[in-house]
Amino acid sequence: MADTPKDKSIQLSHGGGGKEMNTLIRDLFFAEFDNPILRSEEDAAKLDLHGANAFTTDSFTVSPLFFAGGDIGKLAIAGTVNDLAMMGAEPQYLSCSVIIEEGFSINELTTIVRSMAKELKQSGARIVCGDTKVVPKGCADGLFINTSGIGRILRPNISAANLTAGDAIIVSRDIGCHGAAILMAREGLTLESALQSDCATLWPVVEQLIAANIQIHAMRDATRGGLSAVLNEWAVASNVGITVDEACVPVSDEVKGLCELYGFEAMDLANEGTFILAVPNHIALGALEIMQRFGHCEHAAIIGTVSDDSAGKVILKTPWNTKRYLDLPKGNCYQGFADARIFDCECAD
Amino acid sequence: MADTPKDKSIQLSHGGGGKEMNTLIRDLFFAEFDNPILRSEEDAAKLDLHGANAFTTDSFTVSPLFFAGGDIGKLAIAGTVNDLAMMGAEPQYLSCSVIIEEGFSINELTTIVRSMAKELKQSGARIVCGDTKVVPKGCADGLFINTSGIGRILRPNISAANLTAGDAIIVSRDIGCHGAAILMAREGLTLESALQSDCATLWPVVEQLIAANIQIHAMRDATRGGLSAVLNEWAVASNVGITVDEACVPVSDEVKGLCELYGFEAMDLANEGTFILAVPNHIALGALEIMQRFGHCEHAAIIGTVSDDSAGKVILKTPWNTKRYLDLPKGNCYQGFADARIFDCECAD
Repeated sequence: MADTPKDKSIQLSHGGGGKEMNTLIRDLFFAEFDNPILRSEEDAAKLDLHGANAFTTDSFTVSPLFFAGGDIGKLAIAGTVNDLAMMGAEPQYLSCSVIIEEGFSINELTTIVRSMAKELKQSGARIVCGDTKVVPKGCADGLFINTSGIGRILRPNISAANLTAGDAIIVSRDIGCHGAAILMAREGLTLESALQSDCATLWPVVEQLIAANIQIHAMRDATRGGLSAVLNEWAVASNVGITVDEACVPVSDEVKGLCELYGFEAMDLANEGTFILAVPNHIALGALEIMQRFGHCEHAAIIGTVSDDSAGKVILKTPWNTKRYLDLPKGNCYQGFADARIFDCECAD
Repeated sequence: MADTPKDKSIQLSHGGGGKEMNTLIRDLFFAEFDNPILRSEEDAAKLDLHGANAFTTDSFTVSPLFFAGGDIGKLAIAGTVNDLAMMGAEPQYLSCSVIIEEGFSINELTTIVRSMAKELKQSGARIVCGDTKVVPKGCADGLFINTSGIGRILRPNISAANLTAGDAIIVSRDIGCHGAAILMAREGLTLESALQSDCATLWPVVEQLIAANIQIHAMRDATRGGLSAVLNEWAVASNVGITVDEACVPVSDEVKGLCELYGFEAMDLANEGTFILAVPNHIALGALEIMQRFGHCEHAAIIGTVSDDSAGKVILKTPWNTKRYLDLPKGNCYQGFADARIFDCECAD
């Protein structure tokens, strides 16, 4: 695409239509997201769809917009693609709707849109329709992005209600990095650390698990509410007990340090590229081996087991061999959880 | 549903998850939008889709949230349903994502969600997935709603590029009511008038046109940019000339009066339940007869013709028998237009 003008900002006239908006849409969104469906420029995109499809939506309101390991654009693509992937669905078509505050930097918008385009390449999903609104200064916090997504379901039986006694619980990497990275960015902390958000598209690793015919009982990305929320939801939905061996849960030293400093539990912190699997125990090592081929899953680990005891509860076995219930996290900005998943909920994290 | 508590407002804790958010989602969104797909509560809705489908998205940022003839909730449903209907698609599945400002009234939110549920009944479309975000006070203008929609395409050949010399142009009702109603609400005008937004779901009338096998060449709702924008886009996309007889274009006295007061053109004003059709001339009266059966289309009128002359231009024949080009509207908050339709653009109107 042609370089967008430097040091310019979005004006209300950009939203009122006219040449300026048209130029922005064509030179930025159309150029970066280019594909034949988007180019048709009708009121809606025409798609040829067959069979079982997953449909999901998410609005992204992260503050700050840029953080270690990502930005709101990467998050908006990875987040919706991951919601589809967790349903065993191949992410195919995305919509993209942005609400921009008057005065927002066009350079920053360009960076964010390019970040979205780059992240789309991780899954092959395409943005096929979109919408741009400009609201007066003070009426939004810089930029909000909504993405909705459609994906072809390849494995229809993955469900929070499908956990079975004897299943192993696998986590795909060390937990809590996104929540910790956002916390650092908000608090202006400059720890001498390599701490980055885990923000990543999970479809490539999920695709390999599906291709290897791994029998996935349940699969979910541990976003708001972290590991605690997912395991508690599963225990209730499947009416099983889940026992987690705390010593097996991978947590980086940086995240541990921040948690001590602020009194958070790593298991409650949000993730944006970390997922949890429940698979029959005898294939757990095989699943782990496939996952560990991917860089961001090299620390994947079996962290627990499913049983018929203590149905509806998650039990944490501490390194001192004591046991306690792992409860649902209490809500706050770093710990918000999605209790009613299809109606995802959070504050601006 | 149970009555929501009176005089309460949305808190950040509503977004952080936990019992409060869960209660709000279940007692409000789930209760009002209830259907089996939504109730499944997975990461994404599972849909069975076959063949050609339309997919569209729109974020609604209207200010004020309540206006004569509607509110942001009605608008958010009608707007996306209409984008599907204009593609000849039966609206089926919608997503709903809300961004709520801390401190927003739960009573008002309840009114708006009920308004959405009521408007859904006009088309039979269902909300099958959703998302709720709460942002700190000052980070949003009360409430933003994004709806994305999927619809089954029943007539695949409706397109802005399909106008043919000899077509008649039909408008479904008197124009400019939404833009005028928003203007009135913003300016605090209390004209002694019955002026209301035209905000309405257009699928029922479109469904009848399709059922009657009316050969629709082009169809579009005249939202931002109004009649002028649609006709200019069509003239360019189909490389034809469109001649409009100004005397035939229905405009109410109230809208005329407001336009004189503020120096606007009724043809540039936004509509939210008014659409334009291009059909072969010999079936225009038949189409008109079907449309006029619907209350909001009783003033539907044939307003122009399509020819090979003046390709790419729209010509307005005035009541004094002079001619001038009808240009694209210049952008402002009441007149914003969508130049690149699939990437709809506007300011908060």
